[in-house]
Amino acid sequence: MSTAPDNAVRSYIEAHRAAFLDDLVEWLRIPSVSADPERSKDVARSAEWLAAELSATGFPIAEVWQTAGLPAVYAEWPSGDPDAPTVLVYGHHDVQPAARADGWDSEPFEPVVRDGRMYARGAADDKGQVFFHTLGVRAHLAATGRHAPAVNLKLLIEGEEESGSPNFAALLRERADRLACDAVVVSDTGMWSADTPTVCTGMRGLADCQVDLYGPDQDIHSGSFGGAVPNPATEAARLVAALHDEERRVTIPGFYDDVAELTDRERQLFAELPFDEASWLRTAKSHGVLGESGYSTLERVWARPTAEVNGFYGGYTGPGGKTIVPASAHLKLSFRLVAGQDPAKIQQSVRDWVADRLPAGIRHEITFWGTTRPCLTPLDHPALRSTVRAMERAFGKTVRFTREGGSGPAADLQDVLGVPVLFLGISVPSDGWHSVNEKVELDLLLKGVETTAYLWSDLAENWQR
Amino acid sequence: MSTAPDNAVRSYIEAHRAAFLDDLVEWLRIPSVSADPERSKDVARSAEWLAAELSATGFPIAEVWQTAGLPAVYAEWPSGDPDAPTVLVYGHHDVQPAARADGWDSEPFEPVVRDGRMYARGAADDKGQVFFHTLGVRAHLAATGRHAPAVNLKLLIEGEEESGSPNFAALLRERADRLACDAVVVSDTGMWSADTPTVCTGMRGLADCQVDLYGPDQDIHSGSFGGAVPNPATEAARLVAALHDEERRVTIPGFYDDVAELTDRERQLFAELPFDEASWLRTAKSHGVLGESGYSTLERVWARPTAEVNGFYGGYTGPGGKTIVPASAHLKLSFRLVAGQDPAKIQQSVRDWVADRLPAGIRHEITFWGTTRPCLTPLDHPALRSTVRAMERAFGKTVRFTREGGSGPAADLQDVLGVPVLFLGISVPSDGWHSVNEKVELDLLLKGVETTAYLWSDLAENWQR
Ligand SMILES: [Zn+2]
Ligand SMILES: [Zn+2]
Repeated sequence: MSTAPDNAVRSYIEAHRAAFLDDLVEWLRIPSVSADPERSKDVARSAEWLAAELSATGFPIAEVWQTAGLPAVYAEWPSGDPDAPTVLVYGHHDVQPAARADGWDSEPFEPVVRDGRMYARGAADDKGQVFFHTLGVRAHLAATGRHAPAVNLKLLIEGEEESGSPNFAALLRERADRLACDAVVVSDTGMWSADTPTVCTGMRGLADCQVDLYGPDQDIHSGSFGGAVPNPATEAARLVAALHDEERRVTIPGFYDDVAELTDRERQLFAELPFDEASWLRTAKSHGVLGESGYSTLERVWARPTAEVNGFYGGYTGPGGKTIVPASAHLKLSFRLVAGQDPAKIQQSVRDWVADRLPAGIRHEITFWGTTRPCLTPLDHPALRSTVRAMERAFGKTVRFTREGGSGPAADLQDVLGVPVLFLGISVPSDGWHSVNEKVELDLLLKGVETTAYLWSDLAENWQR
Repeated sequence: MSTAPDNAVRSYIEAHRAAFLDDLVEWLRIPSVSADPERSKDVARSAEWLAAELSATGFPIAEVWQTAGLPAVYAEWPSGDPDAPTVLVYGHHDVQPAARADGWDSEPFEPVVRDGRMYARGAADDKGQVFFHTLGVRAHLAATGRHAPAVNLKLLIEGEEESGSPNFAALLRERADRLACDAVVVSDTGMWSADTPTVCTGMRGLADCQVDLYGPDQDIHSGSFGGAVPNPATEAARLVAALHDEERRVTIPGFYDDVAELTDRERQLFAELPFDEASWLRTAKSHGVLGESGYSTLERVWARPTAEVNGFYGGYTGPGGKTIVPASAHLKLSFRLVAGQDPAKIQQSVRDWVADRLPAGIRHEITFWGTTRPCLTPLDHPALRSTVRAMERAFGKTVRFTREGGSGPAADLQDVLGVPVLFLGISVPSDGWHSVNEKVELDLLLKGVETTAYLWSDLAENWQR
C-alpha cells in the first residue's frame, strides 16, 4: 500500500519545520484585515504572497481570483491518477482587526514565539490552519515518493470570511467548473482540546430577521391612553416570550418537523467528551445553563435548533422614566438550524407565526437578512473515516467527534458544489480567535501538517464514489 | 342667600372682558419654559408678573415663593367670615417648550386671537386656566357686593409642573401651615368637550421603574452558545409578556386587591358620555383598542390600573443582524394606579414578582423612579356638588363626570395637605396641550370666570366640615 510511513513523514516535517515557520511568520506580518477598507491593499498583498508560496510549494496552478470584493487564492495540483478523487481545501487568508492597544502583549502583526506558541493575529484563524497544507502536501510526496498528490488537490482560500463572505457564494457559482470536486476539507475550525483531538462533523444553519411592530402613530401619553390601546413593545415581548414553551422548546408550528434527531450513538459520542460545565460556562461568560429540556449542553449548541433574540429596542430608552405608549418596537431574531431543516421553510413558518399572533392595531414588517443551510457529515462517511484515521496516526490518540454551533461558508461549499464537507482543524479553544493574543500551538500545527500528509493517501485508497 | 345673581356676574364679566384678555396676553408673552435652563429668568419674571397681577386683583397677600428650583406664586384673600371654608386653588405658570419651527401657525409666545380662540403656548395649559380665577373672584365680589370672597381664598401657582414638579412636595411640606385649607381646587385639567361640560373627579396614580437584567458578562456568540445559556432579552420579554394574562388583566399577585371597583352608578355615568371610538382613536393616534376584558375604553383609562412597558432595549440594535446572546436587557415599566391602591405596596409586589420569575444565570436590579398616589373625589362630596352647580349655572347644561388617566401634583396636594381635591377646568381636548398651536376657547375661558364667580358663594353656603 502507498500509505506514507510515519517515520518518513515525521522526519521530513522535522527537517523543514524551521523554514515552514519562517514562511508563516512572513505571511502573518501582512495585516490582511478584510473589515478595514484601509487594509484592502494588504489583503491583496496577502493573496499574492500566498499564490507565490503555493507555486513554490509545487502547485502547478496557483492564481489570485478577483471578486466583487477582496481577492481569493486558488491552487490546483492534479494527481495524474485517473481514478483519484478530487478534494478541495477551504480556508481564508483575511483576518480579524487587531491593535496592540486592544490589550495584546505583543504587536498582533509581529509574530512572536513564546513557550511553543506563536502569537499573532491569524495564527490560528486562519492562516496557520491554511498553511499546514503547504508542508503537509510536501511531506506526503516525500514520504510516498510521489511527484504529485494521491488526490487531485485543490485549494480555495477566500479573502472575506471575517467580513461575512459577501461574495463567496457568487464566486463558487461562477467558478463551479474549476472547483468541481468529490469532497471539501474545511480547515477553519478547531478541536476539543490539545489532549482530545476531534473532528467536527457539522455546523448549524441560520435564518435571521428583524421584526418591526408599529402601534400608535407617535409615542402617546400612557396616562391618557395606557390600558386601552395596544402597545407594540408589549406585543413584541409577547412574541419573544411565546417563541419558547416552559420546556424551552421552540413553539413555532412545524419548527422541528424536519430536524435530523440525534442517534443514540451520536449522543453517546457527545457524552464521552470530557465536558466540564464550569469551564464551559467560563468560556461562555455565562452564569447559568438553560435550554431545551431533555438535551445536554453540547447537544443544545451542536445539534438542536434554536430561536434567539439578539437584540430589541423601542419606546423610551434614555435615563429615568417616561410614561409613554411607544409608537414602535423592534426585534432582532435569529434561528439556528440543524441538519434536515430548510431555512426557506423556517422563514415562512416564522412569518406565518408572527402574523397570526398580533392584535388589531399593531402593524408589522419582517425582514430576513439571509440564510445559511446547516451541514452534517454522516459518521460512517468514508472521507470522514479517512480523516479520523489520518488524525489518529498523527496524534496517536483516539479521535472523537464534535460539531460547531455556528454557521459558516461550509454550507455554501456543500450547497453550490453539491459534495460532502469535512472539517480538519487543529486549533484549540484557548487560541483566542477574534480576541487579543491570538496564538497557535506549534505542536498542534505540526500535527496538522502530519495529518494531511497521511490524509491524501488514505482518501485515495478508501474513496468510494 | 348670598349666591351671586347670574345677570350681575355676566354683565361684570362682559364689562371687564377686554382688559382681562389684554392682561392674559401680556402674561402669555413671557416664555416661562421650565424645562429650558436658559428660560429660568423668564420663569422668574412670570412669577413676579403674576404676583403683581394678583395684588392688583385685590389679594392682600401675594408672594413669590422660591424653591430649590423655579419659583411658585402664593396669594391669599381671607374671607373675614370666621365660618368660611378655606379653598386652595392650584395651577402652574410654567409652560412646555415651543418654537415656531415646530409647526406653529404663529409665534407661540405672541398670542393671537382667531375665530374666538387665543393661540399661544400656555393659553390652556395652564396660564389661561389660572387666569380665570382673577376675573372670577372680582365678578364674585361685584355680584355679591362683598369686599372679600365668601371663602378664604388661597392660590398656589407652581413653576415646575411641566418639569415633573420636582420640588413641589417639599414646598407643600415646608409651607403646610400657610397652605392649610379645607379643599383644593385644581385648575389644570379639562372637560369632555365644549358641548359636554364635565368635572373631573380623580386621577390615576403611578409607580414606574427600570428593570435591568444581566446575563453573560459580555455579548457572546449565539452560534457557539445559543440555545444553552439564559438570554436576558428573552427573560425580559418573558417578564413583560407575563405581566398580563389573555384577558389583559395584570397578573402580579395582589395587584387588584385594594382597587376601588367602579360602582354601577359610576359605570352608568361614564356610559352616558358621548363617547365616539373612532374619534377617540384619532386623538390617541392608535389603530385599535385593547385592554382589560370586561371594561369599556373609558373605564380602562380612567378607573382601571395598568402595567405598561414604556420602552426596552438590549443587545444589538444597529442595522442588519448580529448573532449574539446579549449581555443585558433593560425594561422601562410603569403602573397606573387607581383609588385604593398603595404605590408602596405595588412597588413591593412588583419587586417580588420579578425576583420570582428569573432563571439561574440572570441577575437583576429594579430601580423605582418615584410614585404618585391616585386621587378620587366621591360623587356625593358637598364641594363636588357645589362645583357641579356652579358649572351648570355658567354653562346652562347638565354637568357630567370624567376622570383623568394621568397622574399629577393633585396627589401631592391631597396627601400633604390631607384634604379632598376638586378639579375645575374648562380646556377641551382640541386645545393642543404640549403640542403645536395650543389655544384656549375664549367662550369657555369666560365660562370658567363665571363658574368661579358662583362657586365661592355656593361652597361657603353648602360646605360641611
Ligand atoms: Zn476563520
Ligand atoms: Zn398643566
